[in-house]
Amino acid sequence: MTEAQPRSLSDGGRIVISVDAMGGDRGPATVVAGISRSAKKNPDIAFILHGPRDELERLVAKRRHLAGRCEIRDAADTVRMEDKPSHIMRHGQNTSMWSALDSVRNGEATVCVSCGNTGALMLLSMVRLKKLPGVNRPAIAVLWPSRNPHGFNVMLDVGADIRADAQDLLQYALMGASYARNGLDITTPRVGLLNVGTEEHKGRPELKSAHELMAANAEKGNYQFVGFAEGGDIPGDRCDVIVTDGFTGNIALKTGEGTASLIGDLLKEAFKYTPLSRIAALLALTSLRRLAKRIDPRRVNGGVFLGLNGTVVKSHGSADATGVSAAVKLAFQLAQSGFSDRLAARVAAATSQLHEMTNDKDKSA
Amino acid sequence: MTEAQPRSLSDGGRIVISVDAMGGDRGPATVVAGISRSAKKNPDIAFILHGPRDELERLVAKRRHLAGRCEIRDAADTVRMEDKPSHIMRHGQNTSMWSALDSVRNGEATVCVSCGNTGALMLLSMVRLKKLPGVNRPAIAVLWPSRNPHGFNVMLDVGADIRADAQDLLQYALMGASYARNGLDITTPRVGLLNVGTEEHKGRPELKSAHELMAANAEKGNYQFVGFAEGGDIPGDRCDVIVTDGFTGNIALKTGEGTASLIGDLLKEAFKYTPLSRIAALLALTSLRRLAKRIDPRRVNGGVFLGLNGTVVKSHGSADATGVSAAVKLAFQLAQSGFSDRLAARVAAATSQLHEMTNDKDKSA
Repeated sequence: MTEAQPRSLSDGGRIVISVDAMGGDRGPATVVAGISRSAKKNPDIAFILHGPRDELERLVAKRRHLAGRCEIRDAADTVRMEDKPSHIMRHGQNTSMWSALDSVRNGEATVCVSCGNTGALMLLSMVRLKKLPGVNRPAIAVLWPSRNPHGFNVMLDVGADIRADAQDLLQYALMGASYARNGLDITTPRVGLLNVGTEEHKGRPELKSAHELMAANAEKGNYQFVGFAEGGDIPGDRCDVIVTDGFTGNIALKTGEGTASLIGDLLKEAFKYTPLSRIAALLALTSLRRLAKRIDPRRVNGGVFLGLNGTVVKSHGSADATGVSAAVKLAFQLAQSGFSDRLAARVAAATSQLHEMTNDKDKSA
Repeated sequence: MTEAQPRSLSDGGRIVISVDAMGGDRGPATVVAGISRSAKKNPDIAFILHGPRDELERLVAKRRHLAGRCEIRDAADTVRMEDKPSHIMRHGQNTSMWSALDSVRNGEATVCVSCGNTGALMLLSMVRLKKLPGVNRPAIAVLWPSRNPHGFNVMLDVGADIRADAQDLLQYALMGASYARNGLDITTPRVGLLNVGTEEHKGRPELKSAHELMAANAEKGNYQFVGFAEGGDIPGDRCDVIVTDGFTGNIALKTGEGTASLIGDLLKEAFKYTPLSRIAALLALTSLRRLAKRIDPRRVNGGVFLGLNGTVVKSHGSADATGVSAAVKLAFQLAQSGFSDRLAARVAAATSQLHEMTNDKDKSA
């Protein structure tokens, strides 16, 4: 170790990320390998790592890039994938997930990263961080490989809540646009509302009201409303942000992932089929790797919980070190841009406008 | 032409398919090319072709495989993609779509094929063919490339109706299982109900009731119920049939198609990137073509309308001759297996059982 005396984590303007070391499918060694990779690449980052102290100290001691940049908080218990969220809410005080969220709650860290149980993480996040004033339902947003020049679209909600009324969908639009501005650097994101057709008369009643609300709030929300979008627009270039309820979003996400994975496997098979195609695979290796990198979910690993007092990045449960490092990179980027405060301000402004609209209606009635 | 005097279409046990020649993006020449290809491959098939007589006679005369096996029915009007279904229902009597459905209605043909406007085709099909006794909402089923040995899964509803209650979802299970037996030769199809997780406590209330109904009717419906399925199971190997409402199904279908098409385009780009990768593409040509064929939507072209007195195959609007021929092949297969009658019998049996269950409950109450 080069530093005998650790400096304060946030010395020199470092951004501190709170990381739940436990609960991922591959265990804490993978999480530590991932954050070490991030620490190596980015000198402006530091960590608070939550889990069983002895085990984590041993793992961190082996990584020189983490020296003086990673504080450990002891947490004896782990949230397992099969635990019911409600059980964790009542009995999870000693878990690493709870502890990781509390570091954001008490202001020591800006963003929390966890590979653990999504349901438990969402419920604990709501309980410990609380919803932003004006937000009814928080949402999970993901980045989806797309035909847009920046390579990705934002889609939300992909599963925080299976219900969403018109007001919720408007809030998803505001939050998703804010995420696209801060996570993808798009000044005026184009927002679409997911439906079964692009004609205005189509779809469920709550979608028609949401269409009106989203059109009326576009200027205040600093987004361009493109109207209804279809499933094909999720990987397309008509929108930057796709808004839908958590039921539909979750199914679209998993259908897309499953389809991509099937094609990937069939492609591997195709290249193994003949000696000639094996040679071809060798020749095309660099190009194929570039493609794999472009659509590799590990590179954009991380659903982001939006609508809370603080940002939570949910990494895939099966994330390897590359995946963890990608989630940390996203967390860093959002923390650095002051995303959480900007999002809060945007939602607050829209909420007060909605109240004004409602009051005006009451007056004119 | 080898035959001066056309014989009756159904001579020698030929199966007659009614084909709407108009309304596809590529016009009637493509449709005629497609059915000619089918006629060449399959001696047991004959056609009734609907559209403007002069134009169709000219096109058919050029195709020797259609000689004596294709009757033309004059229909002056065409349903366009932008026409509202309700308008066609009121004013579409002279369209080729209406005429094509009426050939099934009056028993001249067993199955109807059209590349036209989906909404209009569904509404006209309901009006002209009527729903099967016991069916509340007809559904559109598609074949989806999957990891299963037979290569495809059945998914329904992909957009006939955006709503579906528990009873409707049960009917989709019965109809989907019947389709898998007759279209994919699966003796006891495994049926899954699409949801955001596989745990029984998850999802919307109507999904919980549908889960109970589908489990209770599995034996009568001659399917195996695997419980809740997730988006990833649509291209997976856990189920043969995936049941969902038309809103979710339509979005899943278009998300999957969009994702596959994005990957295909990125793959083409990747192979053009360097001289080496261009050589690789040449070497791997056969293997890549095999893969493309496996996931080419044209090869499984055709959503099938289920729950009507007669079967309707909806081909992609942009189908080329290969696509039209694939839709005709599917129509032939379903006609030959007596699918329509079998499906009707299955639904009737389940409906009478449901009535018994309801009566039993009333008695015990």
